[in-house]
Amino acid sequence: MSKQLRVGMVGYGFMGRTHTNAYKRLNDFFPVEHRPVLKAVCGRNEEKTAAFAKNWGYERVETDWRNLVRAKDIDLIDIGTPNDTHFEIAIEAASNGKMVLCEKPLAMNVAQAEEMTRAVEMAGVPNMVWFNYRRVPSVALAKQIVEEGRIGRSFHYRATYLQDWTISPDVPQGGAGLWRLDVNAAGSGVTGDLLAHSIDTAMWLNGPIARVSAMTKTFVKERVHAETGAVQPVGIDDACMFLAEFANGSMGTFESTRYARGRKNFNTFEMNGEDGSLYFDLEEPEYLQFFEYKQLQSGKKMESHLTGWRKIHTTNSEHPYMSHYWVPGTCIGYEHTFLNALADFVAGIETGKPTQPDFRAALQTQRVCDAVISSAKQGTWVETGAE
Amino acid sequence: MSKQLRVGMVGYGFMGRTHTNAYKRLNDFFPVEHRPVLKAVCGRNEEKTAAFAKNWGYERVETDWRNLVRAKDIDLIDIGTPNDTHFEIAIEAASNGKMVLCEKPLAMNVAQAEEMTRAVEMAGVPNMVWFNYRRVPSVALAKQIVEEGRIGRSFHYRATYLQDWTISPDVPQGGAGLWRLDVNAAGSGVTGDLLAHSIDTAMWLNGPIARVSAMTKTFVKERVHAETGAVQPVGIDDACMFLAEFANGSMGTFESTRYARGRKNFNTFEMNGEDGSLYFDLEEPEYLQFFEYKQLQSGKKMESHLTGWRKIHTTNSEHPYMSHYWVPGTCIGYEHTFLNALADFVAGIETGKPTQPDFRAALQTQRVCDAVISSAKQGTWVETGAE
Amino acid sequence: MSKQLRVGMVGYGFMGRTHTNAYKRLNDFFPVEHRPVLKAVCGRNEEKTAAFAKNWGYERVETDWRNLVRAKDIDLIDIGTPNDTHFEIAIEAASNGKMVLCEKPLAMNVAQAEEMTRAVEMAGVPNMVWFNYRRVPSVALAKQIVEEGRIGRSFHYRATYLQDWTISPDVPQGGAGLWRLDVNAAGSGVTGDLLAHSIDTAMWLNGPIARVSAMTKTFVKERVHAETGAVQPVGIDDACMFLAEFANGSMGTFESTRYARGRKNFNTFEMNGEDGSLYFDLEEPEYLQFFEYKQLQSGKKMESHLTGWRKIHTTNSEHPYMSHYWVPGTCIGYEHTFLNALADFVAGIETGKPTQPDFRAALQTQRVCDAVISSAKQGTWVETGAE
Amino acid sequence: MSKQLRVGMVGYGFMGRTHTNAYKRLNDFFPVEHRPVLKAVCGRNEEKTAAFAKNWGYERVETDWRNLVRAKDIDLIDIGTPNDTHFEIAIEAASNGKMVLCEKPLAMNVAQAEEMTRAVEMAGVPNMVWFNYRRVPSVALAKQIVEEGRIGRSFHYRATYLQDWTISPDVPQGGAGLWRLDVNAAGSGVTGDLLAHSIDTAMWLNGPIARVSAMTKTFVKERVHAETGAVQPVGIDDACMFLAEFANGSMGTFESTRYARGRKNFNTFEMNGEDGSLYFDLEEPEYLQFFEYKQLQSGKKMESHLTGWRKIHTTNSEHPYMSHYWVPGTCIGYEHTFLNALADFVAGIETGKPTQPDFRAALQTQRVCDAVISSAKQGTWVETGAE
Repeated sequence: MSKQLRVGMVGYGFMGRTHTNAYKRLNDFFPVEHRPVLKAVCGRNEEKTAAFAKNWGYERVETDWRNLVRAKDIDLIDIGTPNDTHFEIAIEAASNGKMVLCEKPLAMNVAQAEEMTRAVEMAGVPNMVWFNYRRVPSVALAKQIVEEGRIGRSFHYRATYLQDWTISPDVPQGGAGLWRLDVNAAGSGVTGDLLAHSIDTAMWLNGPIARVSAMTKTFVKERVHAETGAVQPVGIDDACMFLAEFANGSMGTFESTRYARGRKNFNTFEMNGEDGSLYFDLEEPEYLQFFEYKQLQSGKKMESHLTGWRKIHTTNSEHPYMSHYWVPGTCIGYEHTFLNALADFVAGIETGKPTQPDFRAALQTQRVCDAVISSAKQGTWVETGAE
Repeated sequence: MSKQLRVGMVGYGFMGRTHTNAYKRLNDFFPVEHRPVLKAVCGRNEEKTAAFAKNWGYERVETDWRNLVRAKDIDLIDIGTPNDTHFEIAIEAASNGKMVLCEKPLAMNVAQAEEMTRAVEMAGVPNMVWFNYRRVPSVALAKQIVEEGRIGRSFHYRATYLQDWTISPDVPQGGAGLWRLDVNAAGSGVTGDLLAHSIDTAMWLNGPIARVSAMTKTFVKERVHAETGAVQPVGIDDACMFLAEFANGSMGTFESTRYARGRKNFNTFEMNGEDGSLYFDLEEPEYLQFFEYKQLQSGKKMESHLTGWRKIHTTNSEHPYMSHYWVPGTCIGYEHTFLNALADFVAGIETGKPTQPDFRAALQTQRVCDAVISSAKQGTWVETGAE
Repeated sequence: MSKQLRVGMVGYGFMGRTHTNAYKRLNDFFPVEHRPVLKAVCGRNEEKTAAFAKNWGYERVETDWRNLVRAKDIDLIDIGTPNDTHFEIAIEAASNGKMVLCEKPLAMNVAQAEEMTRAVEMAGVPNMVWFNYRRVPSVALAKQIVEEGRIGRSFHYRATYLQDWTISPDVPQGGAGLWRLDVNAAGSGVTGDLLAHSIDTAMWLNGPIARVSAMTKTFVKERVHAETGAVQPVGIDDACMFLAEFANGSMGTFESTRYARGRKNFNTFEMNGEDGSLYFDLEEPEYLQFFEYKQLQSGKKMESHLTGWRKIHTTNSEHPYMSHYWVPGTCIGYEHTFLNALADFVAGIETGKPTQPDFRAALQTQRVCDAVISSAKQGTWVETGAE
Repeated sequence: MSKQLRVGMVGYGFMGRTHTNAYKRLNDFFPVEHRPVLKAVCGRNEEKTAAFAKNWGYERVETDWRNLVRAKDIDLIDIGTPNDTHFEIAIEAASNGKMVLCEKPLAMNVAQAEEMTRAVEMAGVPNMVWFNYRRVPSVALAKQIVEEGRIGRSFHYRATYLQDWTISPDVPQGGAGLWRLDVNAAGSGVTGDLLAHSIDTAMWLNGPIARVSAMTKTFVKERVHAETGAVQPVGIDDACMFLAEFANGSMGTFESTRYARGRKNFNTFEMNGEDGSLYFDLEEPEYLQFFEYKQLQSGKKMESHLTGWRKIHTTNSEHPYMSHYWVPGTCIGYEHTFLNALADFVAGIETGKPTQPDFRAALQTQRVCDAVISSAKQGTWVETGAE
């Protein structure tokens, strides 16, 4: 017997699309009890919102999110709008007793994130932040390998998230599709957009980041506004790099940019421990690379003439999430990372073991992001306070 | 204004699932007029068929395909059942004026394929065979590059399709999930199952295969039947390799097996021409490798200190199919090859330019498959007759 | 106390250079007793031979190999001249009691190879054929892994040796540097030049090739002679591909060409067995790829979520030959394959355990080459007679 | 007519070996006038030095470098001893009018490096520091591509130099082979040993590094001394990472460690510019990866469906140094980077255009190294003063 999960989606942009796709696919692939129902989608532009609703099958359209979060026929509010709107919507949704799923980064700053976390926890509503890259099977396998103790004492972690789509000074900023370049809507540039992913994954695998030393740059100083046509100063960080010390004593380097010619979605991490190492690259998501040094069975080491980096093609039914899809050797795509996340969230509701990352976890990532921006401004090492 | 495309699906196995998924996704991603409606799914086991119908949302269940192909509320019959059933169903569907989509290989042999081709052509019904790998964006890009004249005179083509899932003699044969190992249901082993894909792609890119010299092997001679438990001789080819001469004078090697330890879905091709070369591997489908030697502009060669194999990450909006999905750098999955094929088929109906491969094209592949099996039996070179 | 190994080199071309380099480096890297002394180099063109002798440090020059093979101050005759000269020189050298090292392929045909083998065996002189690619550390490691039983029952072997340097019809044939394109000097085209390497490696790793079905092509039909300027028909095979059945029942595909645009020295092999697989590519010789499936210790399988192709960077001191060179992580080059071969040969003399491949082993490769050419001519399967 | 270049080598360890090998090979491969003569090698341990001299062919042995630098039969002093000895030897050699080749890093600190630079410049003697990785053909090609203007405005540079050989606490420190772990002999850990290479390459390709923020770690706090057996504190940096701002405004990340399990000689760099990007990895030195975006000819861009990272196999005769070796597709090894460096040095003498990096260039690298160590100690950004 299935239960309805009535969805109110806020936002019809890129993330509105990826989340909606996940709701529509859930029951085809995952044996959960809940059946998402696309009740309403909310957007300020009624025409565009209606077109989106028609394309994807939402029952109705809202143009004021305040109506949506109060609607009685909605169980879950999903926030897929620009960063500057997350705070208000999440607080209101929680206070109306709705489950809240929020696109990353959680908030514009730590103060907001703390209040949002308090709100969902006080309301006691299920909540999750869409750090979807945890749900790439290869990344989930990395977590499993770490938890199996195959990496050992951690020495190093390094992450990059490189893109190249804003190199041209002709790219405008602001407006519907380009709010990520507008500091008022986005809060920061690559730090909140891309490094937030890297930091979430890093702390999931390697524990809290204790302190950072960062530098940011804005390579293109002025851009035309996409809607008004006015030339405006660029307020975001085009690129950000930082050194990190983890609470466990390991060292980290992080870098993100939208100016790395030839890198499109080059979200990579490498972790080096006493017993093994891991490497992942989102541009070839079907692989996790693993160097195993640890003794496989008691008393024996890997024979040294056979050691090497192993490319694990994470498409076996033994790999995370993959038993729900096709056959070994066949890949899933970007969109399935959202589907997997949703499946985990719903399973969390049904089993009473909430999935991660919830708002509290995302708050820790926010702490690091804020510390990074702060360090870059001050030119000093900054403690993050992340737990 | 949308038109219904009422689907009658025959088969609820692996291919029933991939095709059904395509029908459900079509309108989310492609701006076609037709809207698939999942009218009925047909299977011999009523309980399992009903479970499938419920999971995927079919309106009703049939247990006799003859009823389905005659049903008035069905526009399109999709054949996803074992190979030995394609012939009868396709003929009947065509004679009832239904569009026919058939899983590959088209038939058990050339005689069947010829009759099926006649049937759909006489009935004048739209038809297609699901050689889905043409619709991997990287493979479609290979076709585009060939058509742009960037490869030049063709010298070599080589293809492998390697898997490893039947190495253990404990794998049973026959029954619902394992009919591919039962010669009565499958007609052949890797030749029809895997090499048919390789041959279809090869002839699409490099033109007809004129003659072949082949060898097959059956490494495991007896297997237990999955349902009866009886030990039976194995009738299929476990592995098949052949030399080919193409009509254009180029040379080809082809190999397929389910005994290549560590290869899961290693469907590769390489094409070498006077002006350039191409390489593809289905285990990392997001890449097409291209070596460009030809002059890029009149009178200039690529500077020789800069030549190299280029890994094209085929996820830009300029790449085939990709403008319908997400953003540059994000991958689609195995399932989308079926969705792309369906979108092409439907667009073909709407524009009046039928998509490929239709039954006539698949007949040519069948000619090569039959010639391969025949050559392996006789130990001689065999002309294929493919056009 | 060191012993002299007085070398008489026949030929000052590409192979004269690689072999000479090996003699000069031997004692720097390998702790053998013998010290090569560069006594004489022999060539028909006195001026060029003298320049070579000066560059590399030979004590004197000969222009008639008959003088060289009879010279009392020579212990070892090294044959680095075109294929059509190997026979006479080797027979004479052996009959004069010299050790004989011969560049591959051993001979123009099996009849010659048999007589040459008899000659060195009757004379009882140490002999070796320079199949240098056995001495790539990665290839030697492949052999070690096979011998350790990590591959198990063999199912498949596939080899390519692809180059692209003769695509242009403007490349002349014949003369000093281009005798490989002249059928009278070379005997065959890619079969003797490149496939001989592939066959030697294949039979070393996987045992004798029992029978073959081959096809050859000559894409460019006429070329200018490099010295005379006359336009002549091309007599060699530009490309050759063949199917093989090994004596152990496994299946093989082999292909070689000089028309694979973008492939420069793409000498690859893959071997698939029940327990594991191997892959090697000479264009990145520092790697051996290994897929391990076999139980590592009794009773345990590799955990299936961890299986993957392992890239072994064969530069550890545990890897074949590497303890003689630098430090882990540093590569050796093409030239060291000859040095390693020479070191093995000299060690074979000193320990009384002759190294391989000797003339008798190279005769088996010749049998396969002849069968390949014969099969291509006749269009039938041909037994090789190789042991 | 050839001229002698009489070599006095100080040190018979790892670098004594690589340099000596270069002297012995020079005239075999490069058409320079000078012929190196291995006059003398100097080492404190007479027995070991004599064994080395015998193995490699030095005419005599010295045990006091002061005798060597004054010897009349020596033209060139090559310093291959631990870092703490470079200063005195170089100063004395220069003041005796000898050419000086010095192993990197040039000195223990900037003060020494400045004095050494003054010494060779006042003496007017040819001088070079063995930053051999500039002479990997792929790295030299990177330089050529930068100079051809194919990268454009530089945005990012990132470098790693990762090894894993000191993870075990059982590795001793100090003594002949392990002085790199002894802070008194080495001055620093990975910073001087590995990062010095990365910095030299970075500034060669991307110009001066203006300022840095660094962190170092010593993971293993105590080690046994290799000779005395005493347990001692570890004084070196086991790992070092730093952020850099280049004078041209681009951003850099650098990291080096000997605790990256599975990385043996993972010396990599990536450079991202407006028009193109470069990537290199010393573990596969035969490749340079290049992403080309810039217009190839005036008015045309690379077609966007064809852009991709190109793996250039830098073994063509058009590639730096390669025309001196074998044939396209065949690799050279680690040792040849020293040979290439020597050939450049000797050509510099003969043409009167001194090669780089000379002492003055190496002084700039020393400035960055010192700034890195200083930044790590202070926890602040530090200006380097490098030019």
